[in-house]
Amino acid sequence: MIYLSGFHAIEERIKSGRSCGPLLIAKPGPRAREIVALAGERKIPVNRVGTADLDHLAADHRGILLEVDEQLKQSSPDMSLEEFMTGLGDRKNALAVILDEITDPQNYGAILRSCDQFGVDLVVTRHRRIAKHAEVISKTSAGASAWVPQAETANLPRALEDLKEAGFWIYGADMKGEDVYKRDLKGRTAIVLGGEGTGISRLLKENCDAMIAIPSLGRIDSLNVSVAAGVIFYEVMRQRSGANTRM
Amino acid sequence: MIYLSGFHAIEERIKSGRSCGPLLIAKPGPRAREIVALAGERKIPVNRVGTADLDHLAADHRGILLEVDEQLKQSSPDMSLEEFMTGLGDRKNALAVILDEITDPQNYGAILRSCDQFGVDLVVTRHRRIAKHAEVISKTSAGASAWVPQAETANLPRALEDLKEAGFWIYGADMKGEDVYKRDLKGRTAIVLGGEGTGISRLLKENCDAMIAIPSLGRIDSLNVSVAAGVIFYEVMRQRSGANTRM
Repeated sequence: MIYLSGFHAIEERIKSGRSCGPLLIAKPGPRAREIVALAGERKIPVNRVGTADLDHLAADHRGILLEVDEQLKQSSPDMSLEEFMTGLGDRKNALAVILDEITDPQNYGAILRSCDQFGVDLVVTRHRRIAKHAEVISKTSAGASAWVPQAETANLPRALEDLKEAGFWIYGADMKGEDVYKRDLKGRTAIVLGGEGTGISRLLKENCDAMIAIPSLGRIDSLNVSVAAGVIFYEVMRQRSGANTRM
Repeated sequence: MIYLSGFHAIEERIKSGRSCGPLLIAKPGPRAREIVALAGERKIPVNRVGTADLDHLAADHRGILLEVDEQLKQSSPDMSLEEFMTGLGDRKNALAVILDEITDPQNYGAILRSCDQFGVDLVVTRHRRIAKHAEVISKTSAGASAWVPQAETANLPRALEDLKEAGFWIYGADMKGEDVYKRDLKGRTAIVLGGEGTGISRLLKENCDAMIAIPSLGRIDSLNVSVAAGVIFYEVMRQRSGANTRM
């Protein structure tokens, strides 16, 4: 049994229409009352409990928990790469993200949250080991892990080959790459992100068409990987938005 | 006594030349060995200890800790707003960041890390309450808290007024603002960031010249504040970099 604890995560899970409940509530502040009302609309049972009961179920709660009676979806990807390709049809623009060795569940969750914001179409990972952190991921992603399409594969280099065949241009994020805003990121684009400290593994690097970097004016050697991801997704969105960009 | 635990944080503190030490080392991996060599160059004493000794000193270490014999500088700002203004001289471009109600030390540290990357000239806060989290901030900022100029003031609205008088244009980050890439962010620019959930307080909002937003294509309501900060700082840097930007 898993208990979702963040306000966002709970709300988004209820809105997704996937089975869940009951909602356990101890201290109904204004935000929690909104969620109780939402649960009522969606016919999800609401149980009043004591704060101590919640303490037993989750280390970190804000007076409210949502019970979900299954493993969250990180343990079973909700889309295969093949389904994604088929669904693309003749779309000109698409954005796929490949996460290489990003094993920290908070970074993974934060990246999923940005994927939602910037309309990333698919996240590809091979990280079975983060599956057990589904609750942390759901919370850090502010619920986005319930929305963002994710595919799991044992063979990331093969996934890059498949994306190339479908017309994707593959960019690796690397400090030694070209300034990201000088590259044309429209069309079918895939971004490969490596782990903090380790970067992208050699084999995947060799499979990239080009490397892109976020220029640094600083003394420290790199951005946090979730911030770097957000900046790159933003740049893709900015270029696709077309007109009215300031130079 | 404070113990720095992150590789980055330790390295940057040693490089900063401010007094510190000894360096306590239990398991010298390749990264730790680099730091030991650096400490040797800078004449900082290195003590071999057992892993259990480190466990007693810090909850989260990677076989290495650096002792610093003072409060970190978040408890005493290293620059006043007046000093900053004087130092500006006739510079055309400058970027100041005002943090309103950002009390989570991890968010604060992550924002400082991005401030370093994107060359933010000054961070203004009124957050005495995060001072006690200097160690978390230093670590999350990957050491950037030792570099980024920070000013503390009890009166943020007054700070905005002072910045305006010095020719700064004040932008508040708000979901209802104008798309950030449509605004000209060159020249002297100040960005006001509010807390997650709460946003910018009413009084500060009234003191902003305009509101800017990062457009969302998603279902979740907002980016993590440190990712939003990184994206906005990036956009300022992109515009200032001038030529060769893709449309």
